[in-house]
Amino acid sequence: MGTKKAVLFNLWGVVVSPGPAETFLKFEETHKLPRGFLGKVVANKDSAMKRAERGKLTLSQMIPEFDAECVNSASEQNVNLPDGFSVRSLLEELRERSTVNANVLQTAATLHREGLLTGVLANRWVDDSGCGSSSGRLLNLLAGHFDVVLQSCRTGHRVPEADLFTSALTQLGVSPNQALWLADDDEGVGAAEALGMTAVFVKDLTEALKQVEVFAGLQAIKGEILPAVCSTETVSHGYVSIKPGVKVHYVEMGAGPPVLLCHGFPESWYSWRYQIPALADAGFRVLALDMKGFGESTAPPDIEEYSQEQICQDLVTFMDKMGIPQVTLVGHDWGGSFAWNMAQCHPERVQAVASLNTPLFPVDPSKNPMEFMKTVPIFDYQVYFQKPGVAEVELEKNLARTFKIFFRGSGEADVPSLSTAGVCARGGLLVGLPEEIPRSSMLSENALQFYINQYKDKGFRGPLNWYRNTERNWKWLCSRPRAKLLMPALMVTAGKDPVLLPVFSKGMENLITNLTRGHIEECGHWTQMERPSELNTILISWLKDTHNNIGVAMTPKL
Amino acid sequence: MGTKKAVLFNLWGVVVSPGPAETFLKFEETHKLPRGFLGKVVANKDSAMKRAERGKLTLSQMIPEFDAECVNSASEQNVNLPDGFSVRSLLEELRERSTVNANVLQTAATLHREGLLTGVLANRWVDDSGCGSSSGRLLNLLAGHFDVVLQSCRTGHRVPEADLFTSALTQLGVSPNQALWLADDDEGVGAAEALGMTAVFVKDLTEALKQVEVFAGLQAIKGEILPAVCSTETVSHGYVSIKPGVKVHYVEMGAGPPVLLCHGFPESWYSWRYQIPALADAGFRVLALDMKGFGESTAPPDIEEYSQEQICQDLVTFMDKMGIPQVTLVGHDWGGSFAWNMAQCHPERVQAVASLNTPLFPVDPSKNPMEFMKTVPIFDYQVYFQKPGVAEVELEKNLARTFKIFFRGSGEADVPSLSTAGVCARGGLLVGLPEEIPRSSMLSENALQFYINQYKDKGFRGPLNWYRNTERNWKWLCSRPRAKLLMPALMVTAGKDPVLLPVFSKGMENLITNLTRGHIEECGHWTQMERPSELNTILISWLKDTHNNIGVAMTPKL
Repeated sequence: MGTKKAVLFNLWGVVVSPGPAETFLKFEETHKLPRGFLGKVVANKDSAMKRAERGKLTLSQMIPEFDAECVNSASEQNVNLPDGFSVRSLLEELRERSTVNANVLQTAATLHREGLLTGVLANRWVDDSGCGSSSGRLLNLLAGHFDVVLQSCRTGHRVPEADLFTSALTQLGVSPNQALWLADDDEGVGAAEALGMTAVFVKDLTEALKQVEVFAGLQAIKGEILPAVCSTETVSHGYVSIKPGVKVHYVEMGAGPPVLLCHGFPESWYSWRYQIPALADAGFRVLALDMKGFGESTAPPDIEEYSQEQICQDLVTFMDKMGIPQVTLVGHDWGGSFAWNMAQCHPERVQAVASLNTPLFPVDPSKNPMEFMKTVPIFDYQVYFQKPGVAEVELEKNLARTFKIFFRGSGEADVPSLSTAGVCARGGLLVGLPEEIPRSSMLSENALQFYINQYKDKGFRGPLNWYRNTERNWKWLCSRPRAKLLMPALMVTAGKDPVLLPVFSKGMENLITNLTRGHIEECGHWTQMERPSELNTILISWLKDTHNNIGVAMTPKL
Repeated sequence: MGTKKAVLFNLWGVVVSPGPAETFLKFEETHKLPRGFLGKVVANKDSAMKRAERGKLTLSQMIPEFDAECVNSASEQNVNLPDGFSVRSLLEELRERSTVNANVLQTAATLHREGLLTGVLANRWVDDSGCGSSSGRLLNLLAGHFDVVLQSCRTGHRVPEADLFTSALTQLGVSPNQALWLADDDEGVGAAEALGMTAVFVKDLTEALKQVEVFAGLQAIKGEILPAVCSTETVSHGYVSIKPGVKVHYVEMGAGPPVLLCHGFPESWYSWRYQIPALADAGFRVLALDMKGFGESTAPPDIEEYSQEQICQDLVTFMDKMGIPQVTLVGHDWGGSFAWNMAQCHPERVQAVASLNTPLFPVDPSKNPMEFMKTVPIFDYQVYFQKPGVAEVELEKNLARTFKIFFRGSGEADVPSLSTAGVCARGGLLVGLPEEIPRSSMLSENALQFYINQYKDKGFRGPLNWYRNTERNWKWLCSRPRAKLLMPALMVTAGKDPVLLPVFSKGMENLITNLTRGHIEECGHWTQMERPSELNTILISWLKDTHNNIGVAMTPKL
């Protein structure tokens, strides 16, 4: 990764655009002011705007002073200020026109994953206007995507003052020659270069971000652009006791309507690592559960504890303890089955439901699903999972191998793939596969180690018990009233899932009134980690439609 | 408490009223149907409504069948169904007219505090209508206030069937003769009596709730009616690492706009025990923090870690990690000062701010507050707190005595009260007070033990360090821009607070544009536990006004 260790971005014109300079020119044009009039007012070294940016005034104090400066300047220059001219409307326009550039956030995520540090330097005032939450949302968004965010109104130094650069470099622990600076003005570029930093003048943002990749040695990174990942260490971990001896662990991020993420087998809350920050940024309160038996949630030994009836009841109790009347559920694999069961059997508590890979199957009281499963070769692994203790021994023997075999992408033909058929006959799910398996490119070493750690104490008994209630679940579902699902629902199929075939979702329109579909063709079973960007786009679009107007834009207005 | 161990309430007509019977009659009247027409339709033992209540049909399946039953019945009786008649509109009316009776929830809280068990029996269908969240909110509310909630659509048995009573009694572990039943119909009363329960026929609800008190032996309980308390064991506990080695602990309940509760000295998140469930019920997402140095949050040793600048920065980091752009802050004592400082210095992150007891003081750069404090006798305890290690020893010596001395109500003259004046001269804050102090009636034994446990490991060093930054805080505040506060603000003064006198809040209107005031005359320093009902009313009213239309009614529509 060369000698570059950090990349600093200017807020205005790079992370957020257009910046004030451009908006001022536009405003002058619209209001028939001499070109450069506003720029001249703020250029004064003691202008109200500069003092506000240095934290000497708040926004509400700056506005009347800025107004007065404009009046004075107009009078000096014999310029007529147009009717209705006000700094307030100028700032309103700045706020309305500016958006966060999603591709900069994307580049920051890539840099972060490759071990580089990132920062934003921002000429900003203390926004005490009390008008909405846009400043709060911007600051929160920046803090989530960059290692340091320095605001001029807190440090006392504006871009491009050397002290601001120096503070950022010190906080990041890098020297100037290890850092890159991106700005859209000559002054900023010159100041950074004078300090010994490399600077990129941003004329075209896409082009500039390519230069960042070259500078940072990332040009060799191929494959899908990946969203930001949440950190296991700094994310919020919550714990609720739902009954004596049984607790639920979850990870939480964001503010807004609650969205509960329910993983499958053999996974973890961490399987949603690419979704959690993205959905939080989109304006939702994400709760990613460790499902019963997994990770830091309790794993009672008994099989009955893992019936869908019991697990649904547990979730209702969880919501009761949390004081959450309704949630939107998003599930994958077993989490998907669970989400459909919640939607059918506890519709009062489910605002909307989404499932990845797992379709909603009709329930046929005349067809024992255990018998049916025995007739479908790809479901043979479920037959193998039935006998308590057997699959546990096999899967727990070498956790690294187990997860490296499980978590593979659809296009990875370098090792023989796991076959879910013929498992009983060959005497085990992993039998016949090499002892040494390379790690899939979609699974970082850190992620692999996290999964291993999650399973090394409690093992697979709880997780496998989910499979050991097939008849019990079927009888329960047969006993419950079952109407066409009326709540908004999303079904995301994956073209290359070898078990949960897209064709199984055929006919779901007969079971669901308001069904949206998503499909990712080049995607195997592990949708959240194999195609995170495409999945996030599908999920966020559906969540926003469903929650209609309550979502906060991914590119919030400032 | 006599032989009564449990009280069971019928949902319809007791917890929620009016019930279907009354609404049906009203509907018949309005729509000129023969009186009793609807009652007769549903009385049939296999009517759609009864089947739905037994969980054989969902609501969406029930509606067309119920419609058909009305058409048939009308035809048999030669009745003309009015234009636009529909079961859907009948149910809509039921939903719109019904409200939860707050006094029943209140009685349940009192019973719970006195060690009795409570339950609700509810004839309800599975609401799969997908229309809003009212059913979810009702179920969530009931689960929060009663030990068991049995719905007919889940048990298969309707009120007043014996099996439903028996299930409830079994779940609560009580025998019929230990239980009381409240219903507003003869049939229900008779069925409960036949089982050996005592039954109260509810004609007038207030009267009936008085009878509950007599039966349960509560008539001797005097003093303020107390709101429900949240349980330390079953509430959700969250943990966020805000930097290496420093974590924040919080308790969380509710869904909606985030409201952060910040306690003072020497307290705990638990000081908000009466507020947490009430604000959650009112439609807010409550986060009650252990402030830095307290409880399960980290207590770094250094004094500088407790400067307001640092603690404010820590909260911003907490919000960043949580993905929460803005919050409403509610603080008390030091938490109140902190809330004002956040509002002034980080206004982007604060939607609205409320303080109990602690006023917003103007900042005077010419007046060193440490010098000022030395001139005001009631602030002498703060002078005493300055020297590291001294107050720690005194306050940690006998934690039970310390908290029993601190936590006293304004009207409790049975022991000499703590004087915050003359502390240095007498050589200690608690010097001169008896060794054996009775526990205040506002502090339960459980609560006392909880506080003791929170302090027994980490002691008072972190908490006292909040007081040891007076000059540093003042200098910081002087360095920050300071305008009139524009966001909504609430100041609640307590008439009998011996230190934070209501008079200190005079002039706050000059510092705040949009200030709401609350005042509780008969209240000392510990507002949250001395006058919880009055405080909750003030807070909820202000929060709802402030959040305008986003609140969920305390008495939700069904």
